[in-house]
Amino acid sequence: MRRCVVLLSGGLDSAVTLAAARASGYEAHALSVDYGQRHARELDSAARVAAQLGAKSHRTVALDLRAIGGSALTAATAVPKDRTAEQMAAAIPPTYVPARNTILLGLALGYAETLGASDLFFGANALDYAGYPDCRPEFLRAFENLASVATKAGVEGRSRFRVHAPLMRFTKAEVVREGGRLGVDFGLTWSCYDPAPGGTPCGRCDACVLRAAGFAEAGVADPAAPGP
Amino acid sequence: MRRCVVLLSGGLDSAVTLAAARASGYEAHALSVDYGQRHARELDSAARVAAQLGAKSHRTVALDLRAIGGSALTAATAVPKDRTAEQMAAAIPPTYVPARNTILLGLALGYAETLGASDLFFGANALDYAGYPDCRPEFLRAFENLASVATKAGVEGRSRFRVHAPLMRFTKAEVVREGGRLGVDFGLTWSCYDPAPGGTPCGRCDACVLRAAGFAEAGVADPAAPGP
Repeated sequence: MRRCVVLLSGGLDSAVTLAAARASGYEAHALSVDYGQRHARELDSAARVAAQLGAKSHRTVALDLRAIGGSALTAATAVPKDRTAEQMAAAIPPTYVPARNTILLGLALGYAETLGASDLFFGANALDYAGYPDCRPEFLRAFENLASVATKAGVEGRSRFRVHAPLMRFTKAEVVREGGRLGVDFGLTWSCYDPAPGGTPCGRCDACVLRAAGFAEAGVADPAAPGP
Repeated sequence: MRRCVVLLSGGLDSAVTLAAARASGYEAHALSVDYGQRHARELDSAARVAAQLGAKSHRTVALDLRAIGGSALTAATAVPKDRTAEQMAAAIPPTYVPARNTILLGLALGYAETLGASDLFFGANALDYAGYPDCRPEFLRAFENLASVATKAGVEGRSRFRVHAPLMRFTKAEVVREGGRLGVDFGLTWSCYDPAPGGTPCGRCDACVLRAAGFAEAGVADPAAPGP
């Protein structure tokens, strides 16, 4: 069975991406990165999601991005609330973490080299994250080019690294439907950027708003939705 | 004054690279990464080198690469000793850290975005590190291409990121001569992969062997050389 590395945040998109990798017949090694994000709750979710979806292994790399600042997810900047779809699409949001996906894919690439894998799975989505430059297909192609010259396996001609982003063109509703089809337990996933002290999703940050809209459009009840 | 980010390990090459960035007129922001390397002594050296060479700031990002294994620098594999130049050149050594420079440059890129800088300085060298795929010019060009599509500044057309590697074509002796010319205090730098418990360089790992040969060829005494 071919091995792959799946970047697993514990959110909805990465859970469905792991399920897609498994459905394509890969032995999946899940990798989470604890980068000092405020919503560390995601990492607990990642462990549960990895187990539910039959990942062969799950590891977490600690990386303290607070030293390089620059994002509402890692620094002392307010997470925006109650934004409309238009507001989200208008500009790169303050929750954008500089070069985050370059760093995450770099870690996945290093782990893949250690495992002898040449397939990376990544829950990037070009529609819901239009404001994030490192969620676009051209970014993933540039990373594949880099990977082929950056690694032992690439240089020795043994591997051509591929970054699979099966959700790239999906709307959030399509992500929900695909997750349902592939047996993802949505109750284990976590999306909120800014949970209340008791550990409930805030329901108002961009991630909560997009998630709620996706479930509503798909006509699926979200078992992890905040109570009324 | 234009800002740049300099990856600073505390070794000889990165110290001379920082000196070159300063000599080119940049306001230099030094970035070190504590990636669980055995030779943490390097990080103390980095702080001293940053101060001596007039870096505007110096930050250290903690990243525990041990979770993804794969190298004698981060895992429980022996550091090779007493290898000849031919042995070093013959194959990628066990001290190669998978995708290390992709990860380091990714962090430097994120920090550059936070600072509004678009120049990265990196002590890569294609001659002494012939066995490392991610020390070659084609790797750096692929990273520049990635950076231009991965970032806010790149996408908005405000920056074309450049990775400067002023030592790329230098022999180790030329690095020593350039460092001397630029006023680097070599006694502050640290190269050894596997220091003795008392904190003395081993004198036998690849880094020590290359360093000693470089100083000898340059006809310069190394103030940090292990005693007789």
